This record gives sequence, C-alpha cells and structure tokens, in this order.
Amino acid sequence: MSYRVAVVGATGNVGREMLQIVAERQFPVKDVIALASERSVGQEVSFGENDVLKVRDLGKFDFKGVDIVLSSAGAKVSADFAPRAAAAGAIVVDNTSYFRMDPDVPLVVPEVNPEDIALYRKKGIIANPNCSTIQMVVALKPLHDLVKIKRVVVSTYQSVSGAGKEGMDELFNQTRNVFTNGSLDHKKFTKQIAFNVIPHIDVFMDDGFTKEEWKMEVETTTRLILARSCSGLSATTICMVEQFGLAMMLCLR
Amino acid sequence: MSYRVAVVGATGNVGREMLQIVAERQFPVKDVIALASERSVGQEVSFGENDVLKVRDLGKFDFKGVDIVLSSAGAKVSADFAPRAAAAGAIVVDNTSYFRMDPDVPLVVPEVNPEDIALYRKKGIIANPNCSTIQMVVALKPLHDLVKIKRVVVSTYQSVSGAGKEGMDELFNQTRNVFTNGSLDHKKFTKQIAFNVIPHIDVFMDDGFTKEEWKMEVETTTRLILARSCSGLSATTICMVEQFGLAMMLCLR
Repeated sequence: MSYRVAVVGATGNVGREMLQIVAERQFPVKDVIALASERSVGQEVSFGENDVLKVRDLGKFDFKGVDIVLSSAGAKVSADFAPRAAAAGAIVVDNTSYFRMDPDVPLVVPEVNPEDIALYRKKGIIANPNCSTIQMVVALKPLHDLVKIKRVVVSTYQSVSGAGKEGMDELFNQTRNVFTNGSLDHKKFTKQIAFNVIPHIDVFMDDGFTKEEWKMEVETTTRLILARSCSGLSATTICMVEQFGLAMMLCLR
Repeated sequence: MSYRVAVVGATGNVGREMLQIVAERQFPVKDVIALASERSVGQEVSFGENDVLKVRDLGKFDFKGVDIVLSSAGAKVSADFAPRAAAAGAIVVDNTSYFRMDPDVPLVVPEVNPEDIALYRKKGIIANPNCSTIQMVVALKPLHDLVKIKRVVVSTYQSVSGAGKEGMDELFNQTRNVFTNGSLDHKKFTKQIAFNVIPHIDVFMDDGFTKEEWKMEVETTTRLILARSCSGLSATTICMVEQFGLAMMLCLR
C-alpha cells in the first residue's frame, strides 16, 4: 500500500523538514505534492537526496485523491483549507494551533495517546500539540503511568528556530554584527537575541503568562495525559540560541 | 573617616570589578592595595578613571593597618590568607565559598540580613553567598516577610562570565569560528558553548545535582532567610551566553 501525500507550507522550515523526514523514513508514497501560498508557486523544494518538487498553489489545489495532508502553514491557513481537504477525503495532520482545542479533533502525541487518533473520523483532522508540550508529555507519560502526577513546574529552553527563518536570520546577523561592530537592531524579537535569552515567546496574555506558556498548560491539562487528574501546570518559556530542552519539577500524588 | 582597603585577586574579572565599584561609588579610601599571586606581581590594574595600581604579592603582604579586605581569589587562597589578615586586624569580606557554611562567619546579603554582620567579630570574616543565591534571596525577602515561603523551585540562566576569563574567551572564539568554519573544540566547558546552553555549572554531586544547585539550596535554607522555615528548595542552574536571571515558583504557607 502506498499513499498520495501533500505537504502544506512546503517552503517553510517545518514544511521542508516534513518532506525530508517522509523521504528519509521511506514512507510509502506514490506521489508527494508540495503546496504553499500563491506567491511561492513555481519555487522548487527538495524531496530526499535526488528529487525536486515544484511548489503548487494551495488556494487552487483540488485535494480529491490525496490520502494524507501534513500541514504547517499557520493557524489561519489551516482554518481555511483543512475542512476543504478533509471534505475531499484526505486525513489532515495539522501542526498549527488552530484545531488543538477543538473537542471533535484529537490532539495526539503518538508516544502518549495513540488511541485518540480514532476520533479523527469526526472531522478528518488530527492535531498535534505545541512543540514544547510534545517533548514534555513524552517524558511525563511513563511517570504518570506509575504514579499519578499532581503538579508540574516546567522551564523550557527554546531555540530561535521556533521563530522561523526571520528569527534565525536575526540571530545570525546580530551575532556577526557583535564581532564587526555592526548594528544590533532587532525586528523579529522584542530585544537583542544575540548572546541573550528572552523570557517571552508569542504574545503576553491578560494573566501575565505568555501564550506559549498558556499552550503548554491548557494542552496538557485539558486534552493530554494530565486531563482531569492534575491540579496545575506552571510554565516559564524562554527563547534562546539554538537549544531546546526543559527542566521540570513534579509533585506526585 | 577613611579606610585602607585591600583587594585580593585584583587581576581577575571580579577583583577588577571590585576596584571599579570602590572608585565609582567614591568609597572613602585613604589607600587602596591590589594583591594577587606572585606571578602577577608588577602587573598594573586600573583604579577608577585615572589611577593605576601596581599589583603586590599576597603571600608576602603584611595586613597590619589594613581596615577592609575585599577578596575573590578562590576558596583555597581565602582559606590561607583570610585568618592571617583578620589576625592582623582587618575585616575580610570574602566572595569565595570557603567560609560560607562556617557558623562563626556571617553569610550576609545587605538587603536581606544586615543584622548578621555583627557576627563578624568572632573571626573577623564576613562571607557573601553564591551569585545566584544573592539575587534570588533579594527577590524572596519581601515576599517572605509578608507570607512565609514554604518551598521554592528555581531555574537560573547564568552567564559564561561566571566561568571567568577562560570561559568568556571560549565563547568568543567558538562563536567566531562558527562563522568562519573554524574549530569548535572546547576545554573550559563540557560541551560547545557557542549557540548553546549547558545545564551543568561546577561539578556534579553524588545526588545528581550540581554543586552550583547545591549551593543555592544549602546557603538559602540553612544560613539565609529560609533557615528553619522552608521545607525545600530545588534549583536547576543553566550556563549560557551572557545573560543572568532566574525563574521561580514559590509555595507559600
């Protein structure tokens, strides 16, 4: 058996990585389609070592006959195209935040709650959590199976690549400019990021937490392994140079 | 009234900063003496904008007539010279870890427990805590005065400058080499530090915590504001590029 696979957001950092992994793992594809916004049409992206795909226009694409869509082009894009792709018969695996809290869409981390995938039949869409949530729950799951977790305090150390190509370019150029006495202007980040860390990922919410912190809490405590069994999760998310990890403190029952 | 002040470790990063601050704040000095190990004798260090001091040999120096010694030349050096300086009548303010847990030496943060300074009469020595402990307890103190703190979970974000000049040079050279495809060898740190963070400051203890984490716990819970009133403190200390800060999670009574 082999599949027709479409990647939405194929020109972005995440889309390129998706294509890379599909190729690397020799996922059984009979066809791979690279989709992006109109202005990227005609660009070429790599698929594995030898193949090159021409990017096609997501807005005009007919999903009939596509089996699986891997999507990472932003929440607004997913809101628009995912129901259309699902209606045409595709299963959409969506990396954006748009469907994560939708009770008719499973929020799945394969190592944690593979059984929830079955819920995809309702809308034809499967969501995956925020990146920092994923790695945290993979670590929490075996502990939670042994001894119920009561509370989690977590600090993350996240890479600038989470801010996309613009963020990575800002780090690269600023760092070079530190050595050459060039400008340390910043645009993508709220402060200088070269030789710095910024405790600020995504926007601040009314309660003083950032949206990144809120995502870790709400995804974990309402939809993932700690749903209905955890009295709280407090996160501090920190954006920094090229490292991704987290420190956790747990209270067990 | 003015004082004879000696700075021990005057050629190091911290010693130079001590001299800088004594000058900047116009501390009433009648004489300032720069002391270091024999091999630094004859070197010159700045005192304020206009003065230069010739470094003298700590090993041969007679502390008679010195009022205050500011010391930051490593625990072994302090172990040796501080009792000698105190016996000669000086008050030694020591920045190393050597005397921090000595019950006859006060461990003082001026914003937190200035009253403990009186204990200096026992040995003529006043210790200050580890850098990460200091900034933490300054933040904890007013909270603790209002509502007793039961438990602290803290993550620090510490700069490479804590590893001294060698650490800063390693960061500088490695970062430049990332841009020029040069060597990424490491010596001072256990991993590449350029564009990285390393959750490892000082050595690992038997219980898996680092000595830096242990210091924050033991200094705070046995000798500072949380002594006899706190059920625990857990620290994660992370070494990283040019930033110093901490995130805390508190349980209050």
